[in-house]
Amino acid sequence: MRQIGYMVVALFALAGGVAYMSLVPAHADGTATPVFDVKLPAGYRDWKLISVAHEEGSLNDLRAVLGNDIAVKAYRERKLPFPDGSIIARLAWKYVPSEENNKAFGREQSFVAGDATNVQFMVKDSKKYAATGGWGYAQFNDGKPVEAAALVGCYGCHIPVKDRDFLFTRYAP
Amino acid sequence: MRQIGYMVVALFALAGGVAYMSLVPAHADGTATPVFDVKLPAGYRDWKLISVAHEEGSLNDLRAVLGNDIAVKAYRERKLPFPDGSIIARLAWKYVPSEENNKAFGREQSFVAGDATNVQFMVKDSKKYAATGGWGYAQFNDGKPVEAAALVGCYGCHIPVKDRDFLFTRYAP
Repeated sequence: MRQIGYMVVALFALAGGVAYMSLVPAHADGTATPVFDVKLPAGYRDWKLISVAHEEGSLNDLRAVLGNDIAVKAYRERKLPFPDGSIIARLAWKYVPSEENNKAFGREQSFVAGDATNVQFMVKDSKKYAATGGWGYAQFNDGKPVEAAALVGCYGCHIPVKDRDFLFTRYAP
Repeated sequence: MRQIGYMVVALFALAGGVAYMSLVPAHADGTATPVFDVKLPAGYRDWKLISVAHEEGSLNDLRAVLGNDIAVKAYRERKLPFPDGSIIARLAWKYVPSEENNKAFGREQSFVAGDATNVQFMVKDSKKYAATGGWGYAQFNDGKPVEAAALVGCYGCHIPVKDRDFLFTRYAP
């Protein structure tokens, strides 16, 4: 059964950023593709640390997950779902061996953050982003937002951790 | 030539923490061993992110380097030497593969922060810690300071990066 295409456009201002969300039919079967026009949140580089990670393979990066005050408070209080206004930032940098560190340690073991790769955000607005679990998704390469098509898979990929309000990252003690 | 043993005891109060430093002869040749009695700085887990790293080998950890406001400002302004009052915190967690993330990515590539291992600090006081480049060193395991003997090597190991005021970590963009 083909669904009828629809479009929802929402606008909100949040913590120095402005985000639009629209749902437009993009697939042959009429499935809606979410479009999140999230602007780069001001001051995110100053946010508190949630955790860190390393991705091998084609990503080959070191990453840090930061949160604005609303998000970090919810993480620390283990409060689910995350309240509206929560923003999670995932920063990532190239995974680079450090010869300098290796010399100091006396062995080849040290990897540090190189150039930045991209920054991703999850912005919580349970009404505006109801169709995608209450979260809007965004990615910036060199400060520029990626096209909507690149964000199509975000929500689906996060569904396995729906019980933790769609957040893979756990708070590092 | 044997040096004459000496002891310097200094006390300062800083950002919610109190630190003592003493220099006592601990080696057969009379070389002084610095003793840094640095208390755990309040609120360090809220500090801003400087960078991240991964250490392989016996350390086998993921780490984040945070700084208090004085230190982060100096990093961002590339100000050397770091002003007195700067504190650098190195947090570390066990390097743990994430089956959950791997499933989402469809490949074995994801490593996340597990249990905390230890936290290390560098505290800048150019007078109190003049004998060790202006920095006092500390490490806490489960919130408890390690013995002075464990900190003997800190300064010597950081000498190769004296040109960057003894800090290996570079600010991640």
